[in-house]
Amino acid sequence: MSDYGVDGACVGVCHGIIARHAPDARVIDLCHSIAPQDIGQAAVTLVGAVGYLPRGIHLVVVEQLDASGYTRGVVARAADGSTFVAPDNGVASLGWEALGGVEEAYEISNPDLWLPLPTAVFRGRDVYAPVVARLATGLPPADVGPRIDPGELVVVEPRVCHVDDDHVHGEVLSVDHFGNLSLNMTRAELEAAGILLGDRVEVRADGRLLTMPFAHTYGEVPLGEIALCEDALRQVMIAVNCGRAAEVLRLRRGDAVVVAQVPRDGARIPVSAVRGLA
Amino acid sequence: MSDYGVDGACVGVCHGIIARHAPDARVIDLCHSIAPQDIGQAAVTLVGAVGYLPRGIHLVVVEQLDASGYTRGVVARAADGSTFVAPDNGVASLGWEALGGVEEAYEISNPDLWLPLPTAVFRGRDVYAPVVARLATGLPPADVGPRIDPGELVVVEPRVCHVDDDHVHGEVLSVDHFGNLSLNMTRAELEAAGILLGDRVEVRADGRLLTMPFAHTYGEVPLGEIALCEDALRQVMIAVNCGRAAEVLRLRRGDAVVVAQVPRDGARIPVSAVRGLA
Amino acid sequence: MSDYGVDGACVGVCHGIIARHAPDARVIDLCHSIAPQDIGQAAVTLVGAVGYLPRGIHLVVVEQLDASGYTRGVVARAADGSTFVAPDNGVASLGWEALGGVEEAYEISNPDLWLPLPTAVFRGRDVYAPVVARLATGLPPADVGPRIDPGELVVVEPRVCHVDDDHVHGEVLSVDHFGNLSLNMTRAELEAAGILLGDRVEVRADGRLLTMPFAHTYGEVPLGEIALCEDALRQVMIAVNCGRAAEVLRLRRGDAVVVAQVPRDGARIPVSAVRGLA
Repeated sequence: MSDYGVDGACVGVCHGIIARHAPDARVIDLCHSIAPQDIGQAAVTLVGAVGYLPRGIHLVVVEQLDASGYTRGVVARAADGSTFVAPDNGVASLGWEALGGVEEAYEISNPDLWLPLPTAVFRGRDVYAPVVARLATGLPPADVGPRIDPGELVVVEPRVCHVDDDHVHGEVLSVDHFGNLSLNMTRAELEAAGILLGDRVEVRADGRLLTMPFAHTYGEVPLGEIALCEDALRQVMIAVNCGRAAEVLRLRRGDAVVVAQVPRDGARIPVSAVRGLA
Repeated sequence: MSDYGVDGACVGVCHGIIARHAPDARVIDLCHSIAPQDIGQAAVTLVGAVGYLPRGIHLVVVEQLDASGYTRGVVARAADGSTFVAPDNGVASLGWEALGGVEEAYEISNPDLWLPLPTAVFRGRDVYAPVVARLATGLPPADVGPRIDPGELVVVEPRVCHVDDDHVHGEVLSVDHFGNLSLNMTRAELEAAGILLGDRVEVRADGRLLTMPFAHTYGEVPLGEIALCEDALRQVMIAVNCGRAAEVLRLRRGDAVVVAQVPRDGARIPVSAVRGLA
Repeated sequence: MSDYGVDGACVGVCHGIIARHAPDARVIDLCHSIAPQDIGQAAVTLVGAVGYLPRGIHLVVVEQLDASGYTRGVVARAADGSTFVAPDNGVASLGWEALGGVEEAYEISNPDLWLPLPTAVFRGRDVYAPVVARLATGLPPADVGPRIDPGELVVVEPRVCHVDDDHVHGEVLSVDHFGNLSLNMTRAELEAAGILLGDRVEVRADGRLLTMPFAHTYGEVPLGEIALCEDALRQVMIAVNCGRAAEVLRLRRGDAVVVAQVPRDGARIPVSAVRGLA
């Protein structure tokens, strides 16, 4: 997983390095379309995927250069036997927490394993891919560098939603290929605000208010209509049946969203009268 | 093949599931850029590719949720020994017809083969990938569920062109990466309307009329000029040499196109005088 | 490597052909997002990657059809033992030069190795993929067709920069996924014009003038600011820290760029006063 994109040769070059050093390793591309330097998006994407992957070595490279240079790299062994190789910026932290936490960790500091004269700007090629290839062929993790305390590793703290009486305040966690908007809310959290499957709900975001049903799936509303439902990871999402909720609501990852019950004894606001909806 | 896109982790997660259950299976990504829910585009893309693929298991997931839920999944054995795994919505039907038709078919209904608690919204991960992985490791197709009559399977009926004296009425079948417009017409069908290779032809689409040569390839016209020619599947296509016909003509998949002879005894309409051409 | 894109089935079909004929061959996708028919971009991308790939068979298909038809294909054995299979239009020439030059070359002309009835418009599927698969399973290169003089092969001559006293005149060599602009200049060439790491420099392009530091990496300037630095191939690049230099400067591959010292005794032009900068 990386933010290297699929429009250049960066990913192919990393495959090449791995194939040179570990010709029998099987490599699966999880996702290379993380937004540039978006550590949070990578962490969220990884945690939603890692439970479905084989036990193996998970290479995750999304980082931001700053005046002090690049982030140190780490090799972290998770409780289930998986290994994460990543910059120590939290990008893999939700992933290893989902697999039981880190049991041992090592700082990547042995340059004998890297390409000669590594650059600061393509650490995936120069440092991470050669290290991963060596681990895949049996190099003990301790050979990458000194052991470090797992408690020192940088972790990402996902922002959680907040139930405030009959409202749930949260944000857009991710936008998928279909334009569906996953929120940092679960069905249980909506239920804590009295919002039950089958209810109509009010969704406030970007200064607008929409009402929609809270359904099992978007398939329950007519084509082109909007629903609150559960996504493939059992998070609550806003989806348009055969449409793109992200464009209808003009929302992006990180935008605030409030979900509330439609007042049961009040007038329902018809969707066609929603302010500002194109 | 799917409509999952290459901008997220959906395809990688399906690879992960297959690698867990069938670590020795070789997986080829045919195309994950089918337009969302576009069963017809997937069917046409599959039939143009399947004859070039190894005999194996073809997993095709493009479907549309509706109020009754997802489409049932099927495993269909084609006459050539290939296996198709797909929703029963016709998406794979042109593919198996091209390989001799279906000899036996089974409904995917044995949940022991799936991930626990499968979702309705990511059936590729929860149902199809685990079933495919088990089939790849030797599971008999009959173990996925009850046998069904191949005659019951939903099939896609491609719209065919219509030769009307010296005109051929058809539509855009697909638009490729280069912007070439493949039509649902063959050279033989143009010949039935008296249009021969080397002729100049009139193409009517979207209220505009263009004349262009009917050439072997777009390489026969100067850079930037337009031609009718044959595509890589021997369908007739409209192409601009080193340009994008789809943008010049502003046409998309499904748009109507009429091809006719330029009247041999009349004045030819120069391209520069074509109405409406930007 | 090709210009086939990742939005259709072309690449998957080539994988299919190779898997049919060489089921044990490992295939790495280097890059399929070369701009259509852009032989120069492909040559530059290949030379920046080939040194990181395993010794193997490098299939590179980017070509332009013209009135005389397609370009002949060649198999070229490089001095390091690698094999290049490509149209004879120079697309692979920088690649094989980087691996020591061509020792023997053959024209692809034996149709027994191709698919029956090959088309002119998808030579990757019909000619190149089957030839590559046969070479991968041990076919001697001489079986693809007659030996040709390596000196006859078409080569691409990259445009080099020009040091003119204290100015370096060059151009944009490539634009990467992050919008960084690599130039056809090296640090040594800037030093020949008296421009040293740590200096402020003037960059002229597209009628505008910007000043920026010549830094080790873009990480040394604040977020959103611009720097001249070295890319992952030790070429000089213009980069914005966590931004897109290609959009800030509105430059594309091939656009002219002049780099010069900021006059040491003159007034520095503040970035905010740069003409035309959005």
